Amino acid sequence: MIRVGVIGYGYWGPRVARNFQALEGCELTVVCDRSEDLLRRARQAHPKAVLTSDASELVRSPEVDAVAVVTPVWTHFDLARAALENGKHVFVEKPFTATARQAEELIELAERKNLRIMVDHTFLFTGAVRKIRQLVDDGTLGSLYYYDSTRVNLGLFQHDVNVIWDLAPHDLSIMDHLVADKPETLIATGQVHLNGFEDLAYITIYFSGRTIAHINVNWLSPVKVRTTLIGGDKKMLVWNDLEADEKIKVYDRGVSVTSDQSIHDLLVSYRSGDMWAPKVEDAEALSREARYFIHCISNNERPINDGAAGLRVVRMLEAADRSLKDRGRPVSL
Amino acid sequence: MIRVGVIGYGYWGPRVARNFQALEGCELTVVCDRSEDLLRRARQAHPKAVLTSDASELVRSPEVDAVAVVTPVWTHFDLARAALENGKHVFVEKPFTATARQAEELIELAERKNLRIMVDHTFLFTGAVRKIRQLVDDGTLGSLYYYDSTRVNLGLFQHDVNVIWDLAPHDLSIMDHLVADKPETLIATGQVHLNGFEDLAYITIYFSGRTIAHINVNWLSPVKVRTTLIGGDKKMLVWNDLEADEKIKVYDRGVSVTSDQSIHDLLVSYRSGDMWAPKVEDAEALSREARYFIHCISNNERPINDGAAGLRVVRMLEAADRSLKDRGRPVSL
Amino acid sequence: MIRVGVIGYGYWGPRVARNFQALEGCELTVVCDRSEDLLRRARQAHPKAVLTSDASELVRSPEVDAVAVVTPVWTHFDLARAALENGKHVFVEKPFTATARQAEELIELAERKNLRIMVDHTFLFTGAVRKIRQLVDDGTLGSLYYYDSTRVNLGLFQHDVNVIWDLAPHDLSIMDHLVADKPETLIATGQVHLNGFEDLAYITIYFSGRTIAHINVNWLSPVKVRTTLIGGDKKMLVWNDLEADEKIKVYDRGVSVTSDQSIHDLLVSYRSGDMWAPKVEDAEALSREARYFIHCISNNERPINDGAAGLRVVRMLEAADRSLKDRGRPVSL
Amino acid sequence: MIRVGVIGYGYWGPRVARNFQALEGCELTVVCDRSEDLLRRARQAHPKAVLTSDASELVRSPEVDAVAVVTPVWTHFDLARAALENGKHVFVEKPFTATARQAEELIELAERKNLRIMVDHTFLFTGAVRKIRQLVDDGTLGSLYYYDSTRVNLGLFQHDVNVIWDLAPHDLSIMDHLVADKPETLIATGQVHLNGFEDLAYITIYFSGRTIAHINVNWLSPVKVRTTLIGGDKKMLVWNDLEADEKIKVYDRGVSVTSDQSIHDLLVSYRSGDMWAPKVEDAEALSREARYFIHCISNNERPINDGAAGLRVVRMLEAADRSLKDRGRPVSL
Repeated sequence: MIRVGVIGYGYWGPRVARNFQALEGCELTVVCDRSEDLLRRARQAHPKAVLTSDASELVRSPEVDAVAVVTPVWTHFDLARAALENGKHVFVEKPFTATARQAEELIELAERKNLRIMVDHTFLFTGAVRKIRQLVDDGTLGSLYYYDSTRVNLGLFQHDVNVIWDLAPHDLSIMDHLVADKPETLIATGQVHLNGFEDLAYITIYFSGRTIAHINVNWLSPVKVRTTLIGGDKKMLVWNDLEADEKIKVYDRGVSVTSDQSIHDLLVSYRSGDMWAPKVEDAEALSREARYFIHCISNNERPINDGAAGLRVVRMLEAADRSLKDRGRPVSL
Repeated sequence: MIRVGVIGYGYWGPRVARNFQALEGCELTVVCDRSEDLLRRARQAHPKAVLTSDASELVRSPEVDAVAVVTPVWTHFDLARAALENGKHVFVEKPFTATARQAEELIELAERKNLRIMVDHTFLFTGAVRKIRQLVDDGTLGSLYYYDSTRVNLGLFQHDVNVIWDLAPHDLSIMDHLVADKPETLIATGQVHLNGFEDLAYITIYFSGRTIAHINVNWLSPVKVRTTLIGGDKKMLVWNDLEADEKIKVYDRGVSVTSDQSIHDLLVSYRSGDMWAPKVEDAEALSREARYFIHCISNNERPINDGAAGLRVVRMLEAADRSLKDRGRPVSL
Repeated sequence: MIRVGVIGYGYWGPRVARNFQALEGCELTVVCDRSEDLLRRARQAHPKAVLTSDASELVRSPEVDAVAVVTPVWTHFDLARAALENGKHVFVEKPFTATARQAEELIELAERKNLRIMVDHTFLFTGAVRKIRQLVDDGTLGSLYYYDSTRVNLGLFQHDVNVIWDLAPHDLSIMDHLVADKPETLIATGQVHLNGFEDLAYITIYFSGRTIAHINVNWLSPVKVRTTLIGGDKKMLVWNDLEADEKIKVYDRGVSVTSDQSIHDLLVSYRSGDMWAPKVEDAEALSREARYFIHCISNNERPINDGAAGLRVVRMLEAADRSLKDRGRPVSL
Repeated sequence: MIRVGVIGYGYWGPRVARNFQALEGCELTVVCDRSEDLLRRARQAHPKAVLTSDASELVRSPEVDAVAVVTPVWTHFDLARAALENGKHVFVEKPFTATARQAEELIELAERKNLRIMVDHTFLFTGAVRKIRQLVDDGTLGSLYYYDSTRVNLGLFQHDVNVIWDLAPHDLSIMDHLVADKPETLIATGQVHLNGFEDLAYITIYFSGRTIAHINVNWLSPVKVRTTLIGGDKKMLVWNDLEADEKIKVYDRGVSVTSDQSIHDLLVSYRSGDMWAPKVEDAEALSREARYFIHCISNNERPINDGAAGLRVVRMLEAADRSLKDRGRPVSL
């Protein structure tokens, strides 16, 4: 039985708490939030859990084996460090930390204490991303040309971070999961219009191979778009996360170029075949992720979304901030 | 009566020829192409026109008042210069020239000879762009936050230019037409996968004000997308050029931020009202543009899509090439 | 304070219970279901309510002023009658009753006892239907040509009724709410494929005027469709209930026919203008309906969805069954 | 070499003429129309063809082996009979004739003279219908549950026939081509609003087996819809003819019902798998049909869209008119 304590009971915390509570072999024992009102809600949903407004009480509690940190990013480091120092495994909301240095320190600490870190890259546990990963792994798509994601809608503006730190961790963690090559250079452009933080931004990432990634995030779009195009040299796909069914469409389309020596010219030929929308599991991603966290603790396994994965995303976020500051200066990763 | 000669009878030339021929006050007198086969087609469609495979014959012909140059971009300068030197007005396919230097020279020459240059930025004459321009001019959108365009599909690969020179002139000329601010900095990223030219690319343009523009062009997309989002501080719109009806949707949506001094915090409020799809004229853009060219010649008027407009687009294309070469280095305009 | 008892705590009952409980001036006092398991869930959600598996206990309880009957249709009559006889107002799930005769008897009984009947035609309380009703009432659509609804998807098969009794009450109650004319003749066609009940069916209704209605319901469709077209002589609209935003699109389109006496011919002209998607409120319909029920009881007001409205729908369902049996024989209403 | 004469050069005639002219082994020799203006257009497009305003001249011409009758339906019989009597094969625009009696007479006459009749059911030659037929023939869909088609848009009103005779021949001919069972009973409902002819109508057709068909045609719809759902016991498909790509989507979805003897209840299980959009050829249907006509003449083959197919459609149209007249009375076929 793994006993979990949850810090932060605002928007996402209740879902994290509910999913851990619902797992066999797992028990939600303590919930912490500074707001009296939110603690009242926690009591109603989890009458057996101990409630506290003091995080240090939770991280020291002998009734807690693992701590879920579901708070604003600038608090992640202190809370996760305290938890690790007290011998608890940690599950940390994305983005992992506010700086790469913090992430490195947490990883080192966990290593030393032989504790697990899982960063809540929830999307990796959706049916859609799992299916896409499978299409990459089994060679269906072939070698990847590009990963091009658009994640735009109206609001919700964050008060402490720009749109990249708010929305792009989703795309960066998915991209990190799907693209095997090493990211080398990052270019971020964007603009501030309203509250002092960039409310729309564009990120390009060059990889060691010929793959290129692009991410378009925007809080000022009149319409909601959640679409990712992934092009491979064998097949290409469109993932529209707003579709109820048919989230992923795989197109048997492509281009091939052959050079004809005698005429020193390139012959381009196009291929256009069937489209196929594989059935995508629709189980709740967070539930699967919570189960996986318990599994990794119980089996002393390193999760795919471990501290190192979290660090890779934070490094790209930091690079994006540096690039943004100089209107798109390329930053090496 | 304005007599027009058309050089280049491949894909676009026949449409240009047909539209000039169909105008009152205009006559198609000469058609030039190097291909015998294409000249045969020209004869069938325009039995009265003189046909030639020699462009210098056309530009010197006393039967020609204006020359339409509908050939690959690297030939534009020589052909347009010869036409201007022979006292002919010119209508030049986009992009105007292969370099800004060439564009400047043509503009100067036309100025000296008091001749008209029109660059074929056809999209400016579509019902959609005319309607959007009206919504900008009458203040419906308010001050512009951003212009964000996606123009992707599978192929057709060009043999002599990259995807930016092929597809982005559309977006750049529309953007140039809609955004009053001056473009200051351009960042272009992209990747070569197949034939030695970038087959997908992303362009960000910073303007003197707070407007920002972004253009996503891609020859390797499994699906065709022609969508532009334009955000203003009053209203926002989505222009989907693939829709048969309802190409433009105007959303009464927005965000306002007010700062509350006492609590040093920002209050963000969202507004979400009706959507409205104004009727868009569906007359053929090229027909309207051809008529406008004749009108500008007859009335000695400077077209909106004059050499200077063409030059502004070519400058951005050149900047994009420089930026691309250094993996996204910002280039001043 | 109106005290409500809910009979039936399966799929819809918990929502009804929750919405009444959440209202000011209303209290959920008793919940009845035959299933021990469902009663346990009721206890968790409503710890203060009395739980019983005996409906007759609920309808006689002095702690209950109004009874919500949320059970299969064949039980509505007995339960609602018992409630009315015990002096309780009733809120009855749609369709109101299994036969028109039953509905008439309940209406008469409620009349005699001066009690309220509300039939749960929930859709009338959605933002979409309220907006459409407003567009009908204020003359925006003009005189109605037709009401044409499609409500298809895969499953869920009912075990005791055909697809018309399952899905069409939605459409019939909305149509009844929007079309002022009197329905005169009903034709229903359909087919049984799997479990002995019609799993797809088509209903046409002729009205006293020139309005015509058509309803397409199908449990065997591979895709889910919830689309209604409403044509008026001034404007026409499409209501797509599956759209997140823009559920209703109003088209400024129409046809007019003028006869030219001299040539004995008809001149048809088409008008095609803007499209407009009015903002639709997205408050929960059932919450608004529950509040309205309490309001009608407190103010002794007759609801728009009273027993008579329920009866009109049941009469059409009965007529549909008769027509179906004879492969589409027209049935007078 | 088959020499073809075309009678009627209005909207569809020029396409028919062009497609026959473009075929190898076929020559367009005579064009007939009563309008001087249309004949002038014919001369421009087909300078070698003989032009006449006298149909009897065309049908008697020794330069004509086959006559294409592309005129209003009420003229088909006289023209086709004259052509057959003069020993010409006939290609007749749909619907074949104005009455079943006329169709029978033409079939008999052609039989006697050993001449070919082809009715222009063009849709049978589209890539979409050919693909669907293949999915029916190879058992992919399984046994058919239903054929449900919607063909609605604004206008164009016809002056001489109702919306069923205008639009439904498409659906009826496709249905006739796909459904092997025999149609038994037809129910048509509809309403007249503007010019004395039904402008919207609904047709249900019961077959000898358990297949049922439904057709929704409407000239008064604000939006254009061309969607057909076909449900089989193995798979189901949606054909959206307005999609540029992915016209046909095949869904691996279904329902099965098993009865559990002991509990006298039905167990319904749902299956939901991948979706698949097979590549559909996009060659011009009319071109393929014209080639097939020439083939059938040259090889003395009976076409799939022969007079008998045309007659089956006309019988259903006649039945629809009878049913409409009595507000949906079922009519036996």
